[in-house]
Amino acid sequence: MRILLINPNTSPELTERIARLARASVAGDAAIVPATGRFGARYITTRASAAIAAHAALDAFAEHGAGCDAVLLACFGDPGLAALKELSPVPVVGMAEAACHEACRRGRRFAIVTGGLLWKPMLEEFVAQLGLADRLASVRCLPQTGGDIARDPDGSLAALAAESRAAVEMDGADVVILGGAGLAGLAVPIADRVPVPVLCSFETALRAVLALASQGPGQRERTLAPAPPTASIGLSPHLAEALQARSPSRAGA
Amino acid sequence: MRILLINPNTSPELTERIARLARASVAGDAAIVPATGRFGARYITTRASAAIAAHAALDAFAEHGAGCDAVLLACFGDPGLAALKELSPVPVVGMAEAACHEACRRGRRFAIVTGGLLWKPMLEEFVAQLGLADRLASVRCLPQTGGDIARDPDGSLAALAAESRAAVEMDGADVVILGGAGLAGLAVPIADRVPVPVLCSFETALRAVLALASQGPGQRERTLAPAPPTASIGLSPHLAEALQARSPSRAGA
Amino acid sequence: MRILLINPNTSPELTERIARLARASVAGDAAIVPATGRFGARYITTRASAAIAAHAALDAFAEHGAGCDAVLLACFGDPGLAALKELSPVPVVGMAEAACHEACRRGRRFAIVTGGLLWKPMLEEFVAQLGLADRLASVRCLPQTGGDIARDPDGSLAALAAESRAAVEMDGADVVILGGAGLAGLAVPIADRVPVPVLCSFETALRAVLALASQGPGQRERTLAPAPPTASIGLSPHLAEALQARSPSRAGA
Amino acid sequence: MRILLINPNTSPELTERIARLARASVAGDAAIVPATGRFGARYITTRASAAIAAHAALDAFAEHGAGCDAVLLACFGDPGLAALKELSPVPVVGMAEAACHEACRRGRRFAIVTGGLLWKPMLEEFVAQLGLADRLASVRCLPQTGGDIARDPDGSLAALAAESRAAVEMDGADVVILGGAGLAGLAVPIADRVPVPVLCSFETALRAVLALASQGPGQRERTLAPAPPTASIGLSPHLAEALQARSPSRAGA
Amino acid sequence: MRILLINPNTSPELTERIARLARASVAGDAAIVPATGRFGARYITTRASAAIAAHAALDAFAEHGAGCDAVLLACFGDPGLAALKELSPVPVVGMAEAACHEACRRGRRFAIVTGGLLWKPMLEEFVAQLGLADRLASVRCLPQTGGDIARDPDGSLAALAAESRAAVEMDGADVVILGGAGLAGLAVPIADRVPVPVLCSFETALRAVLALASQGPGQRERTLAPAPPTASIGLSPHLAEALQARSPSRAGA
Amino acid sequence: MRILLINPNTSPELTERIARLARASVAGDAAIVPATGRFGARYITTRASAAIAAHAALDAFAEHGAGCDAVLLACFGDPGLAALKELSPVPVVGMAEAACHEACRRGRRFAIVTGGLLWKPMLEEFVAQLGLADRLASVRCLPQTGGDIARDPDGSLAALAAESRAAVEMDGADVVILGGAGLAGLAVPIADRVPVPVLCSFETALRAVLALASQGPGQRERTLAPAPPTASIGLSPHLAEALQARSPSRAGA
Repeated sequence: MRILLINPNTSPELTERIARLARASVAGDAAIVPATGRFGARYITTRASAAIAAHAALDAFAEHGAGCDAVLLACFGDPGLAALKELSPVPVVGMAEAACHEACRRGRRFAIVTGGLLWKPMLEEFVAQLGLADRLASVRCLPQTGGDIARDPDGSLAALAAESRAAVEMDGADVVILGGAGLAGLAVPIADRVPVPVLCSFETALRAVLALASQGPGQRERTLAPAPPTASIGLSPHLAEALQARSPSRAGA
Repeated sequence: MRILLINPNTSPELTERIARLARASVAGDAAIVPATGRFGARYITTRASAAIAAHAALDAFAEHGAGCDAVLLACFGDPGLAALKELSPVPVVGMAEAACHEACRRGRRFAIVTGGLLWKPMLEEFVAQLGLADRLASVRCLPQTGGDIARDPDGSLAALAAESRAAVEMDGADVVILGGAGLAGLAVPIADRVPVPVLCSFETALRAVLALASQGPGQRERTLAPAPPTASIGLSPHLAEALQARSPSRAGA
Repeated sequence: MRILLINPNTSPELTERIARLARASVAGDAAIVPATGRFGARYITTRASAAIAAHAALDAFAEHGAGCDAVLLACFGDPGLAALKELSPVPVVGMAEAACHEACRRGRRFAIVTGGLLWKPMLEEFVAQLGLADRLASVRCLPQTGGDIARDPDGSLAALAAESRAAVEMDGADVVILGGAGLAGLAVPIADRVPVPVLCSFETALRAVLALASQGPGQRERTLAPAPPTASIGLSPHLAEALQARSPSRAGA
Repeated sequence: MRILLINPNTSPELTERIARLARASVAGDAAIVPATGRFGARYITTRASAAIAAHAALDAFAEHGAGCDAVLLACFGDPGLAALKELSPVPVVGMAEAACHEACRRGRRFAIVTGGLLWKPMLEEFVAQLGLADRLASVRCLPQTGGDIARDPDGSLAALAAESRAAVEMDGADVVILGGAGLAGLAVPIADRVPVPVLCSFETALRAVLALASQGPGQRERTLAPAPPTASIGLSPHLAEALQARSPSRAGA
Repeated sequence: MRILLINPNTSPELTERIARLARASVAGDAAIVPATGRFGARYITTRASAAIAAHAALDAFAEHGAGCDAVLLACFGDPGLAALKELSPVPVVGMAEAACHEACRRGRRFAIVTGGLLWKPMLEEFVAQLGLADRLASVRCLPQTGGDIARDPDGSLAALAAESRAAVEMDGADVVILGGAGLAGLAVPIADRVPVPVLCSFETALRAVLALASQGPGQRERTLAPAPPTASIGLSPHLAEALQARSPSRAGA
Repeated sequence: MRILLINPNTSPELTERIARLARASVAGDAAIVPATGRFGARYITTRASAAIAAHAALDAFAEHGAGCDAVLLACFGDPGLAALKELSPVPVVGMAEAACHEACRRGRRFAIVTGGLLWKPMLEEFVAQLGLADRLASVRCLPQTGGDIARDPDGSLAALAAESRAAVEMDGADVVILGGAGLAGLAVPIADRVPVPVLCSFETALRAVLALASQGPGQRERTLAPAPPTASIGLSPHLAEALQARSPSRAGA
């Protein structure tokens, strides 16, 4: 079983870090195929960089998706998620989408704690698009970005715990999502300081993608119906081909 | 790892059937502890029997929950789910709740196909309480109940497939949930006749409960905060004790 | 005209108190038939005890409903309301349902003030199910339960008035509901201290049930369509029979 | 006890008809003070005539409201309802408002059947303003207006029954409101032909206004807070004075 | 090109002021035909006066609308807007409607700053009727009315700027509407003190009405379908005639 | 005054066509600066090509935006609109956003008629994000794409008129938007065959962008606050620079 792990940030060190975490987590159950965005922001922190990252995620899928059984889009906010579901013949899991739905099963109202102040309105809009706006207690963003946090996780634990507690005590959350690839693995260290469950968006999405990948043939494999072939210019050969030749068969098969 | 499998219907043959399916599905990963409602309707098909079943589910948990790592409430419509989350020190998964959230990750709008005409308004209300009303394409109910279908699965496959197709073609669903313990295992046989993914609510919930049960201690284990002790009369000794002695420690520990 | 007054708490002294209030209020217009829950919590303060109370309410109706013209379910939060409407051949009025709709006619946004901290999320969900979430200013709960308040009404008046005023001044309510059988009769004593109308949920529901009971035969009498007969085990003989023999005729007729 | 019955249509024969019905219904419990709009459409059938009727309703209240204990605004669609609540020191009941809230207590989804095709969007907007859009199954309007129906009730019964049945069978209503002063009294004659309860909006509102008028002094009497004095020109002396001198005391007192 | 500028307040000095501003703004592109309400409040500050103003706006249109190419209803809150759209054969622009839609294009969440404390709930309801409640950050009202502000604009600039800043900093608005004919022209003087765009509702509506008036014949000119003729009593001859003779042809043509 | 006209499709012939229309429409009021997507689909018809087009729109802006006073994003569905508003120091108008808000002012419920079947769910989601879902009557898509229609406008007029009429008669629309750059100019030819106003999304957006561009300095010019500098790789030099050097000053100034 092969899982394509797309980091649509253009930061190979982050890709490496989450691939290592993923391999530790899945043990021998699946091979992890990491892919980093070829173009765009080092760390996605704005609407413009998120828009570019959607393209980069499609591009990474087109280049590296062949032979994979499922795809994990590892940027909280899930840039390009619906487009990727349309393009991919295998199931796609978005990190924010998976975490928000899981949080709804774990509590009544959830909060998102992440890094980068500009994500707040973007994530509020994302949750509203899922239809879960009434279940969102709050989005709380640290000033440092996910990239900053990934470089110095220990330095952010106190602030993450404080925002998580504030989400519980002031905003009424009864479950907290630590959102972001850069925050992968930080839920456990702060769990003792937060009076409600803390979900790691990366771990949650990883479990979800494994579950989907391991489903049998009785389940249709695509998430969205395939689109008809599309002529294009100026794209990478892999992506141009994926758009042109799209069919319900497996990528690269 | 022990999973308490509560059938709040008072039908031991259905309990047996889903316990057998569960054991086949989890292989050696977990022990399945089945429990059947002690009182209430043979098959839950009405608002009154669903209300009674909520009590029966709590009663079954109080009697059989000791030592379990997670609970699966195996009646689609999830009678007593929130109360069970409050009472149980370990995670609780509702069959409809799990399936609806999974369906949202698999498609844009989902339909529910199940047995028993009176479930339609009840399930529409249930989905609205989850906050997912805008993502529900339709609820389509066969006249035969889930109990009828469980007794003669082959006789219902054509009707289930026809309603599933109608949900896609007429109601715009791009994923279909086969809802109900009595319909467990029937998604695979009809998958070929339906042009979108068909989720088995029982399989979906089983995967979800396993995933929760296997999480480490970094995750808080309860789904809802414990309530203070409550004095009662006329209940089974186990349930009276569970209400009276509730604490955040593990049930029976 | 006979009104069945169901107290789904298992507290006969509360039943007695509200029956006395009801008799004083209806004067000679109707006979009050009181019924107390046979099993469950002394005072309903949690999700688990509310779930059990739904069963107890059905049980009480099955035992005492024969010959009644309407039913008043006298627990604010209305455990089992929809199931009771399905089971009963005569109209059923829920105390919270009646008060919330009346409050909408009396003001733009209403608040609920009641006893027992755990009721807050339960009542928010209840109001959302009615479809009135946008008209709810707030739910404010005293730490003491409705049962505590019923035992010492005078000791709670100051706190009830303070929360009611806070609901007006901080939450923007322009009508306040004093919710709960235990708070019956306390709206008048605090009315002078609150700058907007204060509705007594019990009085409001009593007026509503009288109005329904006195309607002529041109109005269909059932609130919900009757369900088909349901086989059951382990229930009280009355309830088992009510489930089994349900028909659109009057209970016990 | 005196009830001001405002017919904001400028049709004295309709005022007379509903005053007669009201007197028959309240028996000796209250005096009915009828008032007809001084200006505006004979029968309100359009947005423009409804806007004018709001003014006419305020004008009628200012002239005839002195000494009344409650007000019934007897045009389904309730033109000027919120303004009247602001102006009046005694409770005001709107015919559509009262009927919609009552219908929500009687069923899960309600339909409105009335006369005059242009009322459909106006009533859909009215229900949405109440916050009850999700509980509205449909609005079905006969081509003949409420005025036409009032002049020949028997000639419309078949059409009213047919639309009511269609609302149940095609739109999923489980309670039907016959809306309109012109349709007062027609619910009973068609009840046998409709498989769910049929509410007469006039009877429903009449019961509601009586209940409010008979409440004791513990209840604040105003529905909305009084507005400060307003200088005006060109209005009737009564209305100019009511706007200028508004105070929380009883009208005319 | 002729624009009918209706001031439904009965304050000729305000009409004069906004007509002067309009003429300066449209330069030679259009003739401005001002009309003042013949009856009603000097300045609309309450629900009652707004209801009367709806009638006055229709009356003013009936008297002065002949030969105009479009109508601007110059009271923020747009009393009678839908009725006017129904009555008028040429396009009608409401000041609040135009400003709210424009604000949605300029930012994510908008605030309204205006004069007169009682407008707050009225404007919240107005925005909800547009369907834009989720995009409204807040309504903030100065104690002084729009009429007060129009008489002494300089004296209110500091307070308007302070409320606008508060709407940004405390309520999360990223665009602010200065609402009200009395506040026309005040956006520019405070723009430097507010960190987000400040829209003048009058200027915004003026641009919108000019754009509509200048559209060619390919666009249907009416906003709402014409209603059938309506018989009335007690209205001004112009309005009675407009109601009676309504047809899709141009007013007065 | 200079308007940047971005066609995010990679079809220069379409750019040329709409630039010609725009020049004819603005006469001498503004210079039109056309820009075509450098990469991506010839015609955007899928989620994947729309995601790529968002990047292409940013890229086009970065290359051609210097010295422009406002931007018109000329693809109905507005790929990259929010990102472009963040990046651009001058106002940005999206074709679908402008048309939907205008349609709300012109009628009660609007329909969208466009080309390309896969746009239907994408546009439904877009309208929901605007907050206008309750005002959308329907989205109706011809099988031929906008590109097909642009190549043979006359061949599609009958189908466009038929869908527009169906939107009115079956879906209850009272205003229709012809959506898409490829459909620019086709509203006038079908207007006579449709009983409600037909808005050309291109003309509507063009008027909106002119109005914004011509506003004085009292209005803040940006639509969204500027984001902090973002480091990137693999982008065009212009775009990399725009992301890196973003400041509230005018692009290229």
